[in-house]
Amino acid sequence: MTVEHSIIGKSYPKIDAPEKSTGRAEYTADLVFTGMLFGKMLLSPLPHARVLHIDTSRAERLAGVQAVITGRDVSSVLYGVSPARYDENVLALDKVRYVGDETAAVVAVDEETAVEAISLIKVDYQPLEAVFDPFQAMKEGAPQIHERAKNNINAEVHQEFGELEKAFRESDYVRQDRFVTQRAAHAPMEPHAVVACFDSSGKLTVWSSTQVPHYVHYQLSRVLGLPMGMIRVIKPYLGGGFGGKAETTCLEFCSAILSQKTGRPVQMIYDRKEMFLHGRGRHRQFIELKTGVKKDGQLKGLQVNVVMEGGAYTSFGIATIYYAGAMLSSPYRLPTMKFDGYLVYTNQPTCGAQRGHGTPQTRFAFESQLDMIAEELGIDPLEIRLLNAVGPNEMTINELKITSCEFSQCLKKVAEISDWKKKKGKLPPGRGIGLAGAWYLCGAAYPIYRSEMPHSNAMIKLGEDGTSATLYVGAADIGQGSDTVLAQIAAEELGLAYEDIRVLSADTELTPLDLGAYASRQTFMSGNAVRQAAADVKRQLLQLAAQKLEANVDDLLSRESKIFVKGAPDRFLPFAEVAEEAFFMKGPVVGKGSYKPPKLGGAFKGGAVGTSPAYSFVAQVAEVSVDVRTGQITVDRIYNVHDSGTVINPRAFHGQAHGSVHMGLGEAIYEEVVIENGVVVNPTLAEYRIPTANDMPEIQSEAVASYDPAGPFGAKEVGEGSILPVVGAIANAVYNACGVRIKKLPMTPEQVFMALKAK
Amino acid sequence: MTVEHSIIGKSYPKIDAPEKSTGRAEYTADLVFTGMLFGKMLLSPLPHARVLHIDTSRAERLAGVQAVITGRDVSSVLYGVSPARYDENVLALDKVRYVGDETAAVVAVDEETAVEAISLIKVDYQPLEAVFDPFQAMKEGAPQIHERAKNNINAEVHQEFGELEKAFRESDYVRQDRFVTQRAAHAPMEPHAVVACFDSSGKLTVWSSTQVPHYVHYQLSRVLGLPMGMIRVIKPYLGGGFGGKAETTCLEFCSAILSQKTGRPVQMIYDRKEMFLHGRGRHRQFIELKTGVKKDGQLKGLQVNVVMEGGAYTSFGIATIYYAGAMLSSPYRLPTMKFDGYLVYTNQPTCGAQRGHGTPQTRFAFESQLDMIAEELGIDPLEIRLLNAVGPNEMTINELKITSCEFSQCLKKVAEISDWKKKKGKLPPGRGIGLAGAWYLCGAAYPIYRSEMPHSNAMIKLGEDGTSATLYVGAADIGQGSDTVLAQIAAEELGLAYEDIRVLSADTELTPLDLGAYASRQTFMSGNAVRQAAADVKRQLLQLAAQKLEANVDDLLSRESKIFVKGAPDRFLPFAEVAEEAFFMKGPVVGKGSYKPPKLGGAFKGGAVGTSPAYSFVAQVAEVSVDVRTGQITVDRIYNVHDSGTVINPRAFHGQAHGSVHMGLGEAIYEEVVIENGVVVNPTLAEYRIPTANDMPEIQSEAVASYDPAGPFGAKEVGEGSILPVVGAIANAVYNACGVRIKKLPMTPEQVFMALKAK
Repeated sequence: MTVEHSIIGKSYPKIDAPEKSTGRAEYTADLVFTGMLFGKMLLSPLPHARVLHIDTSRAERLAGVQAVITGRDVSSVLYGVSPARYDENVLALDKVRYVGDETAAVVAVDEETAVEAISLIKVDYQPLEAVFDPFQAMKEGAPQIHERAKNNINAEVHQEFGELEKAFRESDYVRQDRFVTQRAAHAPMEPHAVVACFDSSGKLTVWSSTQVPHYVHYQLSRVLGLPMGMIRVIKPYLGGGFGGKAETTCLEFCSAILSQKTGRPVQMIYDRKEMFLHGRGRHRQFIELKTGVKKDGQLKGLQVNVVMEGGAYTSFGIATIYYAGAMLSSPYRLPTMKFDGYLVYTNQPTCGAQRGHGTPQTRFAFESQLDMIAEELGIDPLEIRLLNAVGPNEMTINELKITSCEFSQCLKKVAEISDWKKKKGKLPPGRGIGLAGAWYLCGAAYPIYRSEMPHSNAMIKLGEDGTSATLYVGAADIGQGSDTVLAQIAAEELGLAYEDIRVLSADTELTPLDLGAYASRQTFMSGNAVRQAAADVKRQLLQLAAQKLEANVDDLLSRESKIFVKGAPDRFLPFAEVAEEAFFMKGPVVGKGSYKPPKLGGAFKGGAVGTSPAYSFVAQVAEVSVDVRTGQITVDRIYNVHDSGTVINPRAFHGQAHGSVHMGLGEAIYEEVVIENGVVVNPTLAEYRIPTANDMPEIQSEAVASYDPAGPFGAKEVGEGSILPVVGAIANAVYNACGVRIKKLPMTPEQVFMALKAK
Repeated sequence: MTVEHSIIGKSYPKIDAPEKSTGRAEYTADLVFTGMLFGKMLLSPLPHARVLHIDTSRAERLAGVQAVITGRDVSSVLYGVSPARYDENVLALDKVRYVGDETAAVVAVDEETAVEAISLIKVDYQPLEAVFDPFQAMKEGAPQIHERAKNNINAEVHQEFGELEKAFRESDYVRQDRFVTQRAAHAPMEPHAVVACFDSSGKLTVWSSTQVPHYVHYQLSRVLGLPMGMIRVIKPYLGGGFGGKAETTCLEFCSAILSQKTGRPVQMIYDRKEMFLHGRGRHRQFIELKTGVKKDGQLKGLQVNVVMEGGAYTSFGIATIYYAGAMLSSPYRLPTMKFDGYLVYTNQPTCGAQRGHGTPQTRFAFESQLDMIAEELGIDPLEIRLLNAVGPNEMTINELKITSCEFSQCLKKVAEISDWKKKKGKLPPGRGIGLAGAWYLCGAAYPIYRSEMPHSNAMIKLGEDGTSATLYVGAADIGQGSDTVLAQIAAEELGLAYEDIRVLSADTELTPLDLGAYASRQTFMSGNAVRQAAADVKRQLLQLAAQKLEANVDDLLSRESKIFVKGAPDRFLPFAEVAEEAFFMKGPVVGKGSYKPPKLGGAFKGGAVGTSPAYSFVAQVAEVSVDVRTGQITVDRIYNVHDSGTVINPRAFHGQAHGSVHMGLGEAIYEEVVIENGVVVNPTLAEYRIPTANDMPEIQSEAVASYDPAGPFGAKEVGEGSILPVVGAIANAVYNACGVRIKKLPMTPEQVFMALKAK
């Protein structure tokens, strides 16, 4: 479906570019309020211990300290992400479970005093045996980290679709491999920051660097026992989330409690080390794949076993372990599939959601194994993927409903732009090319805690002279550009210019509810709500214009700030004129929109997990050089073709692809959170090596023509899908370059060198 | 009409009390933005001069100066209040017309540098003859201040209703007096302050200590030539306006232009002296009254002549001169009336709107003369007022339509609480008691520049869990408590608690248009819009509740956070439950309201001026002591009874009465802006003597039972009416105390002493 748009598909500069580029944008840590105090956490130095006693008296006596709190002073209501697994205390009550677990908090007149006060708190610990390896943790007799979880198994998933054993029996070739991935971190430029302020009427306002103002709002209400109407959560400008800011943190609770105790605004900011201890990054996965194929390459069955090291608390882990398996059911057609997944508690920092959420690990494994199978069968990696590629309007074996799908086009286009056929097998020694595919969600079909909830909502009010429109939307712009994209959607639907749209977003008091920025849902879900709100406004104007133009409403079109009779370009009224008249007649012109995904899922748990109203598809080719003397991999070029439906803003689209490649590259060859005896040993940006600009390959990012019937103007996600194939494409290219198959991440020079040596 | 309310009529604390009392409320001068610069004006030292040349070169060379502008650098579009009298340049182009006229502006990195830079600008003036007295100014051959205005007559009003000469012939007694009032100033605690910021996309945001964000928005658009959609005006917390902040100032234009030139936010703040030079306060009026009565005291006719010294520019003057006459047509029934008014330009700071706007002066005159007439006829001042008092549903002789009116009740009650009958004529020498009455507008029936415009508008969005509601309203809380009163109106209509309402006000981008805080319009007009928005929201909930309760919508009642079946208190649903379900079903629950007054006016100019959709009434008694050795007047007690319809918030009601008494007391005996040869000689709060707490009398403030059918919940104005009788009541009490009739304000000890001596 091709529609000519005025605004959609154009690379407008980000709506917040003026503020950000001039340094005027205030991030949470920039906020200053009269009388503001600074809070700091005391973190456990032990990975597992009973808390016997906390002596805060010396800290309390320090000049400038306003309050000190421990677990006994705060709500004991547990929090977390999934209601079935609320397992975090605001502050430790009986035990600490990892090095970094929060035991106390202080608030003082300045940060230096708070830091000093923290050092004066004395905690008597009774050390307990700790466990760091998930397989050790699952053994009988291992130290039990949470009472609830026998053998430290936090969650299990066991799903089988079709007759897998029969499929393997009918396969011509069955292959089994084991892969191990690393623990990674989001490492956003902006660390977590919060300011909380209770006023004397008992109302709480929280400014937080969060991706999910609504969930923070909800959890604060639950834990503090306040009605939601007494709490307001505002997301200021935000410097990168990547999933790490998609849950409520100890900072929000403690700053709120400390503000309540002192009657003053309280700011709390994690330093970089605390960011690493707080964790919530990518889980280490131990993956076993068993895949059966016919000799022509047709996939017959897939068995997946994943053990996931979860750290001390659950966070998003239940969703993570489901996604790890469920998202292997495509983009290659699978007639049978079995998944067994285990999320295991350990005495390490908690893992959570990170760009691609649970799926880059198994995607790396699957794309690696698929190449091995193709090689075994003598089929080109491109051909085996095209052979098995899913198409539009298919249902996966685990009952995920695919609507639009241009995966084959993605594969063909990435082969074309990368010159795959000329390069594959024809590059000089030490240079290689690799291919991988993937798919991703456009938002989760169900919110985390109440399935009937509208996920995204929007209001639009026209300026009274009709020369602007204000969009009120709860969506969280975390740097990904959702304010920009939503402004484009509003402008297109209204028939105004992009520059005419003013966006107020992510304020739980002034903007209607939105579940926030996670699972790549903002463009699709908030975009639908915004388009609906704009259509509501437009309808009101068209009704008035129809009278004045003596035409039917259905024959009118609003475009480029004019309301036209279709096919009669001379019969028009200026948008502003109609808007102003509407205001004069009936007061403010206001529209609203609301989006709730249809119930799409299959039989399993009502399809509650892993389903999405639409899916994006992506194919990627990596070109690498391997220095066989050192094992050092250099990624020279990445070709990325993404089916994101209609591209709303090409520059933002490519920006997301580049960002995804950056993160995937880091996880492929550089990044790992290294933990020794429970202690993160590289908690700095000097030692945790995210790629620098110099490390980045040339990237060629392309879209394919695509249109999703349920997306706003046909749009789907772009923020996460492109990270998924990166590691697999690089791993396949490395194999192509030097014949070494790396199954453990990251692909360090040492590992490559040792593998080359072994070969 | 008596209705039992849950929220209306209760003295809730002001909604902004927590922020203000803890010092967290940020006023415009408290705002700090990254890269903010400071601007300052160069003011004319001459009252009338031609500007030959301005040399800004030395100022431009001063380190830290970022830009210097003169009249040649800025828009030459004239601005002002009334479109028929736009007569102000942003910066002087050819002439300066008063000491304080703005000739140039600088912007620098800090205020000190800006002040120094101002001192380095050299202006070559050719001095012109100046004129300060309006009668001198009207003479042939007087220096002409504006080309347009022959004999410096800026505006004339000539109105006659009924056959006045016949009325005088038929009168038993005709009395003529002349009164002179002084120039007064608002002297708000917060001087004018503005921050303007152009972003790099060309959008302008202005934070201004203004009573009228919408008019500032409109004038900035006109003068700068930007669409309104490219401008956003926000009113931060504001520290008192009293009419002085009811118009756009040079600060808003210059800070915007300087921000555009520098690409940085620019803050400009008047110091106290500049506040006095900027002026816009109470006009000096020269008043001649001729009144005819029957011997029983019945009023037959009134002739009013007013000459008003307007200063160098028009400001609100056209409205002021109309109000000066038009508002004498009540609260005493007048069968005939004639008014001749002249607004005259002089080379003095401009006068404008100040609490009571043009009417305290003539009200003082009339109430004084009425007492003189009563004495002459041997009638008690209370009796003559009761005899002539207007009642409900009357039309005044100048066709102002009175709806609700409890003026007689006001008179009776003030007599009762002051023990009038026991005290009048029976107090010891040197002590006296005086009475006066008045009435006032509840908003002007017409906006200043487009009569079809809705005057007030509101939106309400329920919090998604139904425990709060957000009110978006353009009304300007300038300390008078409009946010509080509007929250009460919203809460009452919705059936929620006061504490459940969140108010966002006075932001032209986020709140719908409201004409702002002037003419005592916020409670009445914004209140009506808010009530309508709340009713719109409630209707949506009642429709849903009706289905669930199996009742008719019309039988339901929302009150105290429950939706009831009337008469069946057990059949109810919690408001929050219904609200949440409505949200789950259809997305955000949003309502809107809009208020435009009905066309009420009479024949003159379509009734365009002086008319209001409703009128308040007030009666006041003053008790004074006069020290006959010094002439010093001490006001001991003020009894004030105000018909403001339904009282929304008694504490706010009494607060407004106290504030009005304070300002009236100052104008009666202390305050005068003294100008010598065009130079304000007392431009400080040490020398311009507003009453201190020690100077304040005991005040007994009361309401009468009243209900206006067109007011929100029956409410009318309270912010201005009570200032009107103050001066007259004191003057009448002074006469009663010592037999001296003072006809010139302020009633200084010197004047009283000289009058006593003359007697």
